[in-house]
Amino acid sequence: MSRFWTLFLLLMLPIASVRPADAERSGIRGTFFDLISNPWEESADLEDEAVAARFITDGLLVIEDGKILAFGKFSQVAPQHPDLQITEIKDRLITPGFIDGHTHFPQTRVIGAYGKHLLEWLNDYIFPEEARYFDPHYARVGATKFVRDCLASGTTTFQAFTTTREVTTIALFEESKKYNMRVIAGITGIDRNAPDYYRDTPQSFYDRSKKMIDRYHGKDRLLYAITPRFAFGSSGDQLAMCQRLKKEHPDCWVNTHMSETIAETEGVLRYFPDCLDYLAVYEKYDLVGPKFSAGHSIWMSESAFQRLHDKGGCAVFCPCSNLWLGSGLFQLGNATNPRRPVRIAIGTDIGAGNTCSLLRVMNDCYKVGMLNNSVYSGIHSPADLDPKRAERNKVSPYRAFYLATLGGARALYLDEWLGNFEVGKEADFVVIDFQSGPAEQPWLMSRSNMASQGEPGAPPTAKQIQGRPFPTTKDECAAALLALIAVGDSRSVEETWVFGQKVYDRDASLTTTDFTTKAASGDEENASPQ
Amino acid sequence: MSRFWTLFLLLMLPIASVRPADAERSGIRGTFFDLISNPWEESADLEDEAVAARFITDGLLVIEDGKILAFGKFSQVAPQHPDLQITEIKDRLITPGFIDGHTHFPQTRVIGAYGKHLLEWLNDYIFPEEARYFDPHYARVGATKFVRDCLASGTTTFQAFTTTREVTTIALFEESKKYNMRVIAGITGIDRNAPDYYRDTPQSFYDRSKKMIDRYHGKDRLLYAITPRFAFGSSGDQLAMCQRLKKEHPDCWVNTHMSETIAETEGVLRYFPDCLDYLAVYEKYDLVGPKFSAGHSIWMSESAFQRLHDKGGCAVFCPCSNLWLGSGLFQLGNATNPRRPVRIAIGTDIGAGNTCSLLRVMNDCYKVGMLNNSVYSGIHSPADLDPKRAERNKVSPYRAFYLATLGGARALYLDEWLGNFEVGKEADFVVIDFQSGPAEQPWLMSRSNMASQGEPGAPPTAKQIQGRPFPTTKDECAAALLALIAVGDSRSVEETWVFGQKVYDRDASLTTTDFTTKAASGDEENASPQ
Repeated sequence: MSRFWTLFLLLMLPIASVRPADAERSGIRGTFFDLISNPWEESADLEDEAVAARFITDGLLVIEDGKILAFGKFSQVAPQHPDLQITEIKDRLITPGFIDGHTHFPQTRVIGAYGKHLLEWLNDYIFPEEARYFDPHYARVGATKFVRDCLASGTTTFQAFTTTREVTTIALFEESKKYNMRVIAGITGIDRNAPDYYRDTPQSFYDRSKKMIDRYHGKDRLLYAITPRFAFGSSGDQLAMCQRLKKEHPDCWVNTHMSETIAETEGVLRYFPDCLDYLAVYEKYDLVGPKFSAGHSIWMSESAFQRLHDKGGCAVFCPCSNLWLGSGLFQLGNATNPRRPVRIAIGTDIGAGNTCSLLRVMNDCYKVGMLNNSVYSGIHSPADLDPKRAERNKVSPYRAFYLATLGGARALYLDEWLGNFEVGKEADFVVIDFQSGPAEQPWLMSRSNMASQGEPGAPPTAKQIQGRPFPTTKDECAAALLALIAVGDSRSVEETWVFGQKVYDRDASLTTTDFTTKAASGDEENASPQ
Repeated sequence: MSRFWTLFLLLMLPIASVRPADAERSGIRGTFFDLISNPWEESADLEDEAVAARFITDGLLVIEDGKILAFGKFSQVAPQHPDLQITEIKDRLITPGFIDGHTHFPQTRVIGAYGKHLLEWLNDYIFPEEARYFDPHYARVGATKFVRDCLASGTTTFQAFTTTREVTTIALFEESKKYNMRVIAGITGIDRNAPDYYRDTPQSFYDRSKKMIDRYHGKDRLLYAITPRFAFGSSGDQLAMCQRLKKEHPDCWVNTHMSETIAETEGVLRYFPDCLDYLAVYEKYDLVGPKFSAGHSIWMSESAFQRLHDKGGCAVFCPCSNLWLGSGLFQLGNATNPRRPVRIAIGTDIGAGNTCSLLRVMNDCYKVGMLNNSVYSGIHSPADLDPKRAERNKVSPYRAFYLATLGGARALYLDEWLGNFEVGKEADFVVIDFQSGPAEQPWLMSRSNMASQGEPGAPPTAKQIQGRPFPTTKDECAAALLALIAVGDSRSVEETWVFGQKVYDRDASLTTTDFTTKAASGDEENASPQ
């Protein structure tokens, strides 16, 4: 055991050291942006949606023991906290930490596998790689890399799949704990349609889940999700074990996949002929309700959306993955139907998705939304058939950042702790540098921040030529965030703070450390047979 | 005029200085990858496709006066050139320069405009910005930024739209000339469906085009394209002027848009009721043939593909743009039907596309290909309906790099000069650094380069844990290029060479120079009214 911990400590070194939260108060002064309501509920255009967001140019965030004690304009909040130690962050935008609702920790190294749809892809690329995470050394090296990449992308919370084995799950929880992160994860059950070397059984899944729940759920900021991989891979017996676990631990989350491809969906219905649709399988085992989330949820009927709404479950929209695997288009404008809005989080879905950055995910969210409005018939544009739905398909900057922060927190039932700068919530946030990024970005920013576009056709004014590098109004902030969605990536994430502590500093710690050679050869601790 | 040139010289300073090509011979020693045939013609899987590519681990490229004098294995070529001055490039992959078949130079600063389909987008965002390029100062600053971003992305050749005015076109040609680039551009005509301040007339379009052809076509490496923006924006009279120009200058290129959205296509057919389809409009004015290219070509019938094939015209696939505007999915597997394969180039389509990097474009090519196989019906998967077409929709690394190099050169009738390292062609190439890029990349590279994956389910070997950072076989090279397509971006472009000279060095010149403030206020040279 001591060797295990020594390794962890060694692996921690290259990252900015993490001080445990103490009772000290501290303050962050800067420009803040967060969401306070759902922009889809604020109706039809950017101006209406703006009321869903707060933009404070000179704000103060007061943190105590990792939580937000006060927040507002500096001029109003500062006088109430006279002796506060204040960190001033200039020319940067501070947003709540990003929430990745669906990701596969042990797929970090097999992003971008070639040319297969879901079921082939799993067998050819994914199971062989995930099985390497049964090795505790490989798993720890992977966890170090994965968590660091998340933090470097501004992701402070994720809901992650692991493998069928405890060792993988332990590695991820332990690594997350080092940074005091609020994460959801769980042993990922699959007892059919996976190779012998990979799959578990209903009983081993139950036993391992139980052990992990006892060890991690509710400890520090860690949360446990009962995680059947998907109904195509979990027998009725394994889903019954999920049902039993959920009954015994009703405060646990439930995380799975649903309706990702047509072939998978048809396969599931062959296994469960008594079920009306894919969702009905999870309903049959009493898994659908608050804290239930189903990645993808692409091939959904009206009835399935209605029931998911009624029961408070969550669909996780993973556009990068859905495009890379060609799974299909998430019906965003349909899922957000105001008659029965479905809770939506967004996810990277590493490794079918090919980025850890939710900024890149937002780019593909936008594309899927727009594509929804033109593609499904070559005869008519869907946008013409239902203009209101078409409008809901548009991923404005308010909507994109809602999904990545408050919306994701609400969808995953984490909003008592996360999602914005409300007093009492946990202080997870990202410092965004609009000037860093691809070559396209700084110039684009100079244009998008022009409050006045001037008379069309008139020669450019000096102000138009010069542009403005940093937003000073909410409208300009929205334009800058849109530019980030259009061209930006993790280079814009300058710092990431978790529970009131800086855990990532781009300029100090983004090294090209070679994770593949760092640790010694693996020990066998926690490796377990099927 | 002297002020004009002084400005150019000033703007040149931050880039690595460009020596004019001289009669000296020089050699580049390193690892080379290029395409020598069309991987779609090599049939159904990666192994078959591999014959389309060359991979030389220790190669030598001999350059004389900007052109390739010899190329092959170092051991074979070097003895024939005993006194050669050799630049050795280690641990990098050298590929032919990338060819961007469709881009809008004056849209560099309005990438990622929000939530509009094509026609609204043009009026609300694009024409006002493009009109600023009627100002010579604004145009020159823009040209400097645009050309530099292209070079920094590994793009050595582009076919670009400008505006209705000469001043914009001049700025782009002059800037390209400085680097000895082979580019295609032209005055971009639109005499209806554009604001008064923007549009031209058939006569002014003819006159300006004529002047530009005389001044630039065939000078240095510059080529001219007769460029009606699209048939929705060009009256029959303006298209008749294009016909006249093409007749008078048959060696000029013709560049336009076609069948981008359903609404645009329907609009065009209302203007030209005598035409069977969109392509027929261009056929009516004798524009379709070799050197004709039409951006997008999404909503194409079987007949249109057949005729485009028969006449040797080119469809330019611009996936980033097509996804961002929600225009639709280019029918890749259909366009490549071996009974009537259509010439295909790929394009960034800046600013509807949101990157200058053809590596990022390849990522979206891949996604569109995969999506083609699942989306257009929720009842059946298209891949099941036509497996061969489905296979052609897959954008393998060979296919992606073919499109960006040799395929693009062939499609645009530039292959006598460009596309690969064949002796006699011009020496435009890119030096790729697989280790630089987003955080996802180096690790992914270590995995994708594993020639042997080992026994599935067995504990990882030391070799598997360590990985290998640089490809040593053609298969590994393909895997590394796929990783680049999956997660990479311009950070992997370390150097760009044009006509045998290094014109971009990532580590020396990728500064955050503020282009918006550098130049003095504009003069009015070359500004011209409608």
